[in-house]
Amino acid sequence: MKFTIVREEFLKGLLNTSKIILGKNSDPILNNVRLDLFEDRLEIVATNGEMSIKSIILKYKDDKTLIRDLVPGSILINARMITEIIRKLDSDEVNFVIEDSSTAKIQTLKSTFNLNVIKASEYRELDFDENGEKITLSRNEFTNCISQTSFSASNKDNRPVLQCVNIESDTKNISFTATDGARLGRRIVELPLENRFSINVPAKSVNEVVKSLNNEKEIEIFINEKKVLFKLEDSIITSTIVAGDYPNTKNIIPHNYFYRLEVNSNEFLKTLDRIVIFSIDRENIVKLTMNEDEVNVSSRSQQVGDAKESLQLFKYSGDRLQISFNVDYVSNAIRALKSDDVVLSFLGEMKPFTITRKADDKVIQLITPVRTY
Amino acid sequence: MKFTIVREEFLKGLLNTSKIILGKNSDPILNNVRLDLFEDRLEIVATNGEMSIKSIILKYKDDKTLIRDLVPGSILINARMITEIIRKLDSDEVNFVIEDSSTAKIQTLKSTFNLNVIKASEYRELDFDENGEKITLSRNEFTNCISQTSFSASNKDNRPVLQCVNIESDTKNISFTATDGARLGRRIVELPLENRFSINVPAKSVNEVVKSLNNEKEIEIFINEKKVLFKLEDSIITSTIVAGDYPNTKNIIPHNYFYRLEVNSNEFLKTLDRIVIFSIDRENIVKLTMNEDEVNVSSRSQQVGDAKESLQLFKYSGDRLQISFNVDYVSNAIRALKSDDVVLSFLGEMKPFTITRKADDKVIQLITPVRTY
Repeated sequence: MKFTIVREEFLKGLLNTSKIILGKNSDPILNNVRLDLFEDRLEIVATNGEMSIKSIILKYKDDKTLIRDLVPGSILINARMITEIIRKLDSDEVNFVIEDSSTAKIQTLKSTFNLNVIKASEYRELDFDENGEKITLSRNEFTNCISQTSFSASNKDNRPVLQCVNIESDTKNISFTATDGARLGRRIVELPLENRFSINVPAKSVNEVVKSLNNEKEIEIFINEKKVLFKLEDSIITSTIVAGDYPNTKNIIPHNYFYRLEVNSNEFLKTLDRIVIFSIDRENIVKLTMNEDEVNVSSRSQQVGDAKESLQLFKYSGDRLQISFNVDYVSNAIRALKSDDVVLSFLGEMKPFTITRKADDKVIQLITPVRTY
Repeated sequence: MKFTIVREEFLKGLLNTSKIILGKNSDPILNNVRLDLFEDRLEIVATNGEMSIKSIILKYKDDKTLIRDLVPGSILINARMITEIIRKLDSDEVNFVIEDSSTAKIQTLKSTFNLNVIKASEYRELDFDENGEKITLSRNEFTNCISQTSFSASNKDNRPVLQCVNIESDTKNISFTATDGARLGRRIVELPLENRFSINVPAKSVNEVVKSLNNEKEIEIFINEKKVLFKLEDSIITSTIVAGDYPNTKNIIPHNYFYRLEVNSNEFLKTLDRIVIFSIDRENIVKLTMNEDEVNVSSRSQQVGDAKESLQLFKYSGDRLQISFNVDYVSNAIRALKSDDVVLSFLGEMKPFTITRKADDKVIQLITPVRTY
């Protein structure tokens, strides 16, 4: 096995794959990437048990030769080491040769690194087969489906399904939903499909897919009972599916409201960010006091004092209402909506409330308030 | 006490002072800054016991009014809170009023913060008197004296004097020296003074002084038996002096050599940075192998493999020599010298070696090697 490769492309592939195994791996063999060199491409493969990535570097791309002088083969190599070496070399091209089965010689004109390697057969068998239900989403739609929901998944080790984004098809629409029990994010995409399904994909996995996006126009997703596979431009990512029923969230989301507040996202976010300074006794909780003439954000701390600010830009309809909430939940929800103006709809002081874009309701954010003191 | 102040100037003063008290303070009163408002200026004072800072904001600066509507007074206010408030407000000016002796009202058109405050008399008495031996250094010289030495001070809690920069006058020159026992940095400045002295100033303190520099052309330093005081443009910083004899370092620094290596700083640093990747078994240690034809940097690890690189740019005189050293020590020393070319002078494999600028030897870096295996 040997090849000469454009350093920058090799580095990109190594960074893209090795990022999922940089933490602690229970099995030390997973600290390696597998390099599979074929006549027409180099594949770099990594897995952390939960998700797997394959980066593909083609021999020729856009009339440029990225890999030359190649003799096919496969090898396992320490991900951190090979990435560090390729990152720090200051040469346009790098030579890679397996001289005996236990050492890779990585060379430029100035530098020689002899790095211990392991036989490829020691690695786990991975399934990158594209089979099952196929969904195609535009890059923009896919990114929104993930980034507008996944932050609401739980990051605590409680129920594994709550750490997931649920992807569900009712044959007419696909919905992406995440909830940690105190808040929920959902985006619905109109997309006719033959089969119903509902799968739970770890939020970590789908977030990695978004981070791996390059110049894709579309993302192809293949779903079967064992795994979900995301096909990107230069890489393929698979993730396990978490077994278990996702909570029935449909009846949680209210469809009507008694109080409606429209705010300018930017002003509201800045106000929350200031007033939350004084929320020391109750972590990150502020109070919203609304009537048709005035909307105030306030907080009070025994220890520090009190703070109050009036919104300049708002429309409110409904009776006077006081409601308290976690600023992080509301701020993250509003930022995810990516809308200049957002609408908060309330049913009552202690009822979950929704935040939606003023223009459409494709995506809905639901927040549980806390008791006002 | 009340004033209206340009927000940006107030924030600059708060950041400059509060930065030294953001860690843990044994005495909770030290979590406050003292605001002393006079007819012509606002002073913001903070201390962590070891060092103290006073930031001065003048009422008028360059024909601009920075403070108006003022009624003098003094108060203690939580440093983190007031800094956060002033940072996040989005107004050009801020009103500050002490309404009763326990609350400060901080106001803009939109926002009102009522922040609990403490009587100024509760604070420690601080000595900002400018007395003792006076030294004046150009900003550039002062910065070099600190940044080229202080990183060699110990950051472990062993002997307190080793955590200091030693400043010594022999009446002709002033020297700045720091050493942790394994390396040493010294810069000498020609500066006739009447008195001999030798003081130990915590490296943390002098580093804070450098970070506090603004548009200074000169720094005035006042040294007496109790404290050292640094007078900057908009602020005054004092630091305690650490008692105890500084190690006699004069005889450690060799004045001759048997081997001399001149390298290009940039090439050498990059080579070290690459080769150290393989120094896993022995933390950050690489080997330098020199003869007049070739200079190699190499490392070897049982676990990972071996790495080697030949320097392209070098001049070497002397017999063949192998020497091993900590890459961090050598890299930090070379970076501190800020010179395109540096000279490494050796007496032997296990003798401390020096690194100096090619052009002059005002500053000398001394490194103890480690045994080569």
